[in-house]
Amino acid sequence: MRELEERILKDGRVLPGEVLKVDNFLNHQVDPDLMFSIGTAFAHAFRDAGVTKVLTVESSGIAPAVMAGLALHVPVVFARKHKSVTLIDDLYTAEVYSYTKKTSNHISIAKKFLGADDKVLLIDDFLANGQAVQGLFEICDQAKAEIAGVGIVIEKVFQTGHELVADRGVKLVSLAQITSFDGDRVHFASETTK
Amino acid sequence: MRELEERILKDGRVLPGEVLKVDNFLNHQVDPDLMFSIGTAFAHAFRDAGVTKVLTVESSGIAPAVMAGLALHVPVVFARKHKSVTLIDDLYTAEVYSYTKKTSNHISIAKKFLGADDKVLLIDDFLANGQAVQGLFEICDQAKAEIAGVGIVIEKVFQTGHELVADRGVKLVSLAQITSFDGDRVHFASETTK
Repeated sequence: MRELEERILKDGRVLPGEVLKVDNFLNHQVDPDLMFSIGTAFAHAFRDAGVTKVLTVESSGIAPAVMAGLALHVPVVFARKHKSVTLIDDLYTAEVYSYTKKTSNHISIAKKFLGADDKVLLIDDFLANGQAVQGLFEICDQAKAEIAGVGIVIEKVFQTGHELVADRGVKLVSLAQITSFDGDRVHFASETTK
Repeated sequence: MRELEERILKDGRVLPGEVLKVDNFLNHQVDPDLMFSIGTAFAHAFRDAGVTKVLTVESSGIAPAVMAGLALHVPVVFARKHKSVTLIDDLYTAEVYSYTKKTSNHISIAKKFLGADDKVLLIDDFLANGQAVQGLFEICDQAKAEIAGVGIVIEKVFQTGHELVADRGVKLVSLAQITSFDGDRVHFASETTK
């Protein structure tokens, strides 16, 4: 997605450890018009997938997920993060390790919002090691919900998340695919296809 | 806002302690089309206020805030919640007590996203005791930003938040104003004006 790549080049900052900071349009300050374009792009990519529900994780996933839900006219559920979780009967839960923050969180959603009749589009802001997506897979499995696909705003294709989604055999659509960082420079997969 | 009131009557659940649970369209599962209508209503109410930025608190405020930002074509910033906060130079912070959860959180935003040139529309899902809005006021004061107004999805007008906003002298727009609960029944301010 050209508009997104240009925005990353303009406003993204590369931090040590191959971390891309995009807090001025995606995950602290949010550009709603860009989010609308992103939601529209996801909806277009999954328009024939029979999506009944969009699922994401708070907080950074909410803006793109809600815009995808708007374009597809389906409900959006965001999983909540907790430091620890006491097993509660009416929740699906999964453990998610964050390599960036070096901490484990539990994520959960209320059982009443996901079931065997659902075809779920998973949306997240980043795909790196794929821990959040793995957690959402687990929650869908607990709910016996079908996974229609995974939509990612920014993917670091050189990390393990890509393979994790491929192994699952579901369609992955990443709107910006970063192949490498070269100091401050960001390289996209789209450069090689130009 | 008729559409919102009807949805509250249809899907809201009144819990002990005058808590209204609306987790199936607002703060766990989200109805994106309703959020779009809500954002449009906020934008209409504040269209002449010169809003430069929408400010909210994660996570439940994000969906209505992003839709308001979309309709106004201005950036949205969501404050992050932390259990504790070590004072960091580049953050504005405030303490927020939750009467529902009986815990204190700190909320913070990066200084670079709010300044003296901003006219800020504060958006939140609920106004009850007004603690979150009070925290956002404090953050705006630290940034020397002007407050253009407060937009609330659901207000419980019989709690103290309404007065807190009135005392501040800023415009308050609540799309559903609950005047009382009568067992399972929800009463709106609009009933008396019909």
